[in-house]
Amino acid sequence: MAIANRTIRYEHQGVTFEAYAAWDDGSDAARPIVIVAGTFMGRTGFEEAKARSLAELGFVGVAIDLYGLGNWPSNFDEALARMGEMDADRGLLRGRLLASLRMACEAELPGDAARVAAIGFCFGGKCVLDLARCGADVAGVVSFHGVYDPPPFPNGDVKAKLLVLHGWDDPLDPPETVLALSKELTEAGADWQLHSYGHTVHAFTNPGREEMYSPRADRRSWQAMRNFLDEIFAAGG
Amino acid sequence: MAIANRTIRYEHQGVTFEAYAAWDDGSDAARPIVIVAGTFMGRTGFEEAKARSLAELGFVGVAIDLYGLGNWPSNFDEALARMGEMDADRGLLRGRLLASLRMACEAELPGDAARVAAIGFCFGGKCVLDLARCGADVAGVVSFHGVYDPPPFPNGDVKAKLLVLHGWDDPLDPPETVLALSKELTEAGADWQLHSYGHTVHAFTNPGREEMYSPRADRRSWQAMRNFLDEIFAAGG
Repeated sequence: MAIANRTIRYEHQGVTFEAYAAWDDGSDAARPIVIVAGTFMGRTGFEEAKARSLAELGFVGVAIDLYGLGNWPSNFDEALARMGEMDADRGLLRGRLLASLRMACEAELPGDAARVAAIGFCFGGKCVLDLARCGADVAGVVSFHGVYDPPPFPNGDVKAKLLVLHGWDDPLDPPETVLALSKELTEAGADWQLHSYGHTVHAFTNPGREEMYSPRADRRSWQAMRNFLDEIFAAGG
Repeated sequence: MAIANRTIRYEHQGVTFEAYAAWDDGSDAARPIVIVAGTFMGRTGFEEAKARSLAELGFVGVAIDLYGLGNWPSNFDEALARMGEMDADRGLLRGRLLASLRMACEAELPGDAARVAAIGFCFGGKCVLDLARCGADVAGVVSFHGVYDPPPFPNGDVKAKLLVLHGWDDPLDPPETVLALSKELTEAGADWQLHSYGHTVHAFTNPGREEMYSPRADRRSWQAMRNFLDEIFAAGG
């Protein structure tokens, strides 16, 4: 298997973004596209590695950019500021997410634009939930240790299936937010699942966050994602 | 693959019980044992079919009996009465569960008594949680639409990993019981996971309960169980 990759530039409201795509170059078949929305640090090596892991599973993996070139954070404080700007304007975030989705579908990649999913980590978990919430045309979304506060406007017609992978002791998402998300997704009529992992906090997939990383929850959540992607794409997306 | 089966009689406190075991007769290898604890209806064709499905996956499946011969219910009312007796004496239930576990380990079956798990459905979900709670020597337990109220005595040293598969709209387990179970298992130091399925009620695995059956949740929960059993037995139980 030869994993190829390239970067892709795209625009939204005068800002230029840069995504990173990876795919198995040993096959010509059109295959499902899986977008990767990054943590509050933006599109880093972590997200690029996830895109390559998705490529190894037979998908086109596309790590998207939500901050824009020239605006990428280089430390935690800058990242918190960038994420704060997005949190303060969920409409703008939605616009950037939809622009990223369009880019992934229209770029010259061996992906099948009729079969698209999105996964996200930490802030990226919130992003993929927002993609589902706004009724984006994606077959499914997977949130890994996401953040669950809804945007301050109503949901669209939620078409995506949702898989929410949650550390039960995540201080960013105490039990009342889990209950609120469950209620929200039920009322939206969405096909949702939420997997809680005991003794697990935030950032459980990220070896770079040593104090929070859980190899066990990382492995279990990745397996759950694989099952979910198999299910949604076996059904024709 | 040739699935063999036989019944096994065993005793506890003067009561005789009858289990149903199934295994792949095409192999001589000692393999993990998976006990099946039944719904409030007891050991029925549903549980026997689960034992055979487990046999097809390479396990020895053993559908246990918790009511005793001569005491098997033949309708819902009798089943509610039988389950009520067990609910009223969780110590006796524990004794019967441990006797069933011993039987499965000691019976002449191609099972490896050092690698044992338990799955349970509805009332059987409560039973396998109780097995874990009392510190029984099982590698893991899986509750399918179980019932979460703890017994009125303290937990033992919980050694089993737990996978709880839950219909979010199950009226037997409203959100506060999910929170209570999560708290209980966290305080017990147990390795636990809880998968919630949206728009899913009780008995979601049971085609015989047409009004509650969910093919989607049935498929997803069985897949989650397979991943869990693979994980706990790959690690040597």
